[in-house]
Amino acid sequence: MTHRATVDFLLYDWLKADGLCARERHAEHNRETFTAVLDLSEQIATEQFAPINRLIDVHEPEFDGTTVTLPKETPVALQAFADAGLMAASKDAEVGGMQLPTVVEIASMSFFYKSSVGLAAYPMLTRGNANTILAHGTPKQIEVFAKGGLEGRTFGTMCLSEPQAGSSLSDIVTRAVPDVHGDGSGVAWQQDELGPRYRLTGNKMWISGGEHEMGENIVHLVLAKIPGPDGKLIPGVKGISLFIVPRKLVKADGTITGQRNDVALAGLNHKCGYRGTVNTLLNFGEGKFSVNGQAGAVGYLIGKEGEGLKCMFTLMNEARISVGLGATMLGYAGYEASLEYAKQRPQGRAMGAGGKDHSAPQIPIIEHTDVKRMLMMQKAVAEGGLALGLLCAQLVDDEYTGSLDERDNARLLLELLTPIAKSWPSEWAQEANSQAIQILGGYGYTRDFPVEQYWRDNRLNMIHEGTHGIQGLDLLGRKVVMNGGKALAVLAARISDTVTRAGQVDGLAEHANALAGALQKVGAATKAAWATGVPEEALANATPYLQAFGHTVMAWIWLELALAAKTAQAAGEWDKGPLGTGFLKGKLATADYFYAYELPKIDAWLGVVARRDLTCARAEADWF
Amino acid sequence: MTHRATVDFLLYDWLKADGLCARERHAEHNRETFTAVLDLSEQIATEQFAPINRLIDVHEPEFDGTTVTLPKETPVALQAFADAGLMAASKDAEVGGMQLPTVVEIASMSFFYKSSVGLAAYPMLTRGNANTILAHGTPKQIEVFAKGGLEGRTFGTMCLSEPQAGSSLSDIVTRAVPDVHGDGSGVAWQQDELGPRYRLTGNKMWISGGEHEMGENIVHLVLAKIPGPDGKLIPGVKGISLFIVPRKLVKADGTITGQRNDVALAGLNHKCGYRGTVNTLLNFGEGKFSVNGQAGAVGYLIGKEGEGLKCMFTLMNEARISVGLGATMLGYAGYEASLEYAKQRPQGRAMGAGGKDHSAPQIPIIEHTDVKRMLMMQKAVAEGGLALGLLCAQLVDDEYTGSLDERDNARLLLELLTPIAKSWPSEWAQEANSQAIQILGGYGYTRDFPVEQYWRDNRLNMIHEGTHGIQGLDLLGRKVVMNGGKALAVLAARISDTVTRAGQVDGLAEHANALAGALQKVGAATKAAWATGVPEEALANATPYLQAFGHTVMAWIWLELALAAKTAQAAGEWDKGPLGTGFLKGKLATADYFYAYELPKIDAWLGVVARRDLTCARAEADWF
Repeated sequence: MTHRATVDFLLYDWLKADGLCARERHAEHNRETFTAVLDLSEQIATEQFAPINRLIDVHEPEFDGTTVTLPKETPVALQAFADAGLMAASKDAEVGGMQLPTVVEIASMSFFYKSSVGLAAYPMLTRGNANTILAHGTPKQIEVFAKGGLEGRTFGTMCLSEPQAGSSLSDIVTRAVPDVHGDGSGVAWQQDELGPRYRLTGNKMWISGGEHEMGENIVHLVLAKIPGPDGKLIPGVKGISLFIVPRKLVKADGTITGQRNDVALAGLNHKCGYRGTVNTLLNFGEGKFSVNGQAGAVGYLIGKEGEGLKCMFTLMNEARISVGLGATMLGYAGYEASLEYAKQRPQGRAMGAGGKDHSAPQIPIIEHTDVKRMLMMQKAVAEGGLALGLLCAQLVDDEYTGSLDERDNARLLLELLTPIAKSWPSEWAQEANSQAIQILGGYGYTRDFPVEQYWRDNRLNMIHEGTHGIQGLDLLGRKVVMNGGKALAVLAARISDTVTRAGQVDGLAEHANALAGALQKVGAATKAAWATGVPEEALANATPYLQAFGHTVMAWIWLELALAAKTAQAAGEWDKGPLGTGFLKGKLATADYFYAYELPKIDAWLGVVARRDLTCARAEADWF
Repeated sequence: MTHRATVDFLLYDWLKADGLCARERHAEHNRETFTAVLDLSEQIATEQFAPINRLIDVHEPEFDGTTVTLPKETPVALQAFADAGLMAASKDAEVGGMQLPTVVEIASMSFFYKSSVGLAAYPMLTRGNANTILAHGTPKQIEVFAKGGLEGRTFGTMCLSEPQAGSSLSDIVTRAVPDVHGDGSGVAWQQDELGPRYRLTGNKMWISGGEHEMGENIVHLVLAKIPGPDGKLIPGVKGISLFIVPRKLVKADGTITGQRNDVALAGLNHKCGYRGTVNTLLNFGEGKFSVNGQAGAVGYLIGKEGEGLKCMFTLMNEARISVGLGATMLGYAGYEASLEYAKQRPQGRAMGAGGKDHSAPQIPIIEHTDVKRMLMMQKAVAEGGLALGLLCAQLVDDEYTGSLDERDNARLLLELLTPIAKSWPSEWAQEANSQAIQILGGYGYTRDFPVEQYWRDNRLNMIHEGTHGIQGLDLLGRKVVMNGGKALAVLAARISDTVTRAGQVDGLAEHANALAGALQKVGAATKAAWATGVPEEALANATPYLQAFGHTVMAWIWLELALAAKTAQAAGEWDKGPLGTGFLKGKLATADYFYAYELPKIDAWLGVVARRDLTCARAEADWF
């Protein structure tokens, strides 16, 4: 299996990630330290995560009315992750981090997502939670609430959705009122060292990691509205603030008291897949665990009042890229499983000039063209998706540690690519998993093989952290038009640069032309969609636009990878290595596959966008 | 919900199925008798099948080493089906049938597939089994082995695959040798009234309904090879014969002895979905239930020696169309569930000229264009797939009871459409189910709602009864080229006729042009694929060809339905009915949807076919 080698190819042959060590922040690092982290990550993932991935599917979390029980293997695996220091891999040394580049951290995560997305969700959420506190919290909040997560002692969640408000966050009704009654500490609500103290009341739905007995505490980040003087909630997202709500109460010095905060588990959600991650409905402030004789969950305002959604988007954007990478790595897992099967399963015979010779032995199914097509599709998604994830991670690095003149462009490009990084793998790695099942045939449909679980697990990814529809609206309604279209211009410039370089390379010129054509079509469709300036018309086909945009971005990535492969072929190192010449030939063939089989699909999607097709918009409820 | 109304629209407004009553075979019938059967079918399906569909998923079949246990509700529901006489709905009166047209029988089945595909599989298999015996068995075999199934007293299976041979049936190694030792009846093996008697030895995999305690008996139809004089099996499919192997031994007069035949359950397959249908690995002739002191399952040759696969294709072709209809109706079930949800779930607000008014109440999500797009896609698949299934059923009627000059064309068209009827719904109703999940969002991903089960159940359909890859090879490698391309010519003539008629109808002329263009492209790609006459090149992209062909056929069907809707609008009956004008408007809008969003996808698929793209064919195993 070539996942580890492909990570090296992407990091060094393509992204030149070792160059990041020239930046002051990463001066302690070099390719050897990166290698050590990646090797260790692969080892822990393979030895601790992968072996229990089916177990956590079969033994989903249980709630007996008091306690949530997870398989005993779950905390063991997560502890191994934390013990390796991976929770804070990219964080400052002063909070105990390794100061690795984000791109290396994300490369490390790829092994865990592939081995068990249901386990990897815990550190992913906890890390995002800590990052949000690092970005918006006071030093005290960081010390008390973020460090535990970074050290792997506590867990974190994000509490956004409510039963009546999923995609529509403006409709949340969880209330936060000043804790004038007091939490028993004797400290006035405004003067609490942990932040202005509120009491929260409301129900939060779909909360992953919302309740369990692992770690010392769970730190919830909760969106809620502070009522106005009239006691009413402010409509829209502007009324939303963000609060830190610990599961167990915490003193100002960080000591966890052991007393439960008024956060109660209302029930577990029983999902189709992704069962290893406990998913909950939480009741805040219902009085089950009243504090100082008063119902209401104690929470501390983080960031400014009314800026909750903005703060939460620190976590959300990170989560969206992580969701995309998780989807990709499920695709990768299915690719590896079906590749292994295809190499070993004999069935059928090669077609010869005179038909098939039935007395000849059967051939492994990897020799059948249609099986190779299904493997190619998966390879294109798995490796291309990983490349996209690493590119986004490197843009995070560039945004924070790049030269001053590249930071803005990195931020813009990252904002533009975020809906693609989230949606494209969610859709196509799901399809890749379906192809993996198909290669295994009847066996793939049984629970004796892992691919059906990957496929079930992956289905969540088009839903959580912003549905496909939301990503489309974000892309076409906001990202491509913001700053006068500057982000799109940045992407177009990068793509044009790739086109120019590839245009001069033997075997890639045709792809370069196709990519230039695709870019032109996307640009034209973007303009046409907005030609009337009417949002209902422009956005009527935001999802097909998202699909076409995604395929165009991936065509760009695959041409980039083909260029890197050509350069590497000229250098000859890979070809002399243990994987032989097949490794780079495979990259080039996959680029060919993408241009032959995938990129042409954009025309159908862009057609409806460009002519602002209103067939669906105009359909009435009683026509269905 | 409009399933029942849509069935009427398809049967009478489109297919003019009441005209079949003019044929002698159906002279006892009229629209009223059809209505009675369809109403009863809907009622039994709704009352007996649908309510236990989740239960049979949760309580999958169990095997304690001796007995297979199904939920006690399963035989109750199946008995209600049989008691209504539906097992033999289309069969001759002399075998207890109702002599209904096949198209009405299949319309009746649509309700059962929609309510519970896992239950409906039992009568589907039993009926196909009985039909095969009716087609190829002796009068005695029909009396003893087919009638029980048609009366709902016994169950039937088809035993083709083996652990080492799924798609490659030529590699089966189950052996059948003359039962010279005797089964204890004293009758010589050649003289057995039930047919030449053999003993079978081998393992059969993926056998649905292979073992349970329901009914009086299970009648297995088993493919096996009779060794040559040298004791060796003949390579290839020519050595395959078909055998009737009862689970319990049967006397020549039809009495079931109660003694077990030597067929033993080796294990149950634990599937991702479709769990209501018990799926087994059966050992034939291992000696667990030896007969007359001798290992070997007693089986009776049906049809001629060496013609087993030909006989089995009676069942297989029927099963393929049924698999497609099952997939379609899972799509229909998801469509109904997500439609109901979309009408009731409030979330978000309409976009106005000045943005959104957050103080306004939320709107039901069916008012969002992207949700309507997802419903339209599902409607196109569900209703279009049902139309395709009924068309195929009517072609069966025409093949057997049509005028002499239309029978040949009906048979050819049915043969050509069978891979489409099987594959297209399997692929797109699966995608439709995914859209249903998407509409329900997080709720759709939980087991509290039915859509995730539909999606899991549906994933089997691209695998069983011939994988997608096999259907593509059948279509491009055999069906479009057989008889000098006559079947394709028959289809082209039918499509051209539709194009001509639609070209004269206001609002449909553009679609007619698009369909004519699609037909031309499919024809050109077919020629281009075979231009070099090299099968490896022609068939390298058989699956994309299958996809493009399927979408073209469905575009034809949707234009046919649009024509029928236009005619019905002019007549005015539907518009005055309880569903109002929305019913026919919905059909027309769905045709518009298909031409705007779906048909344009064929270009990308046909591109690789037409240029005989060998990117995948040439990829080598070590490139992956």
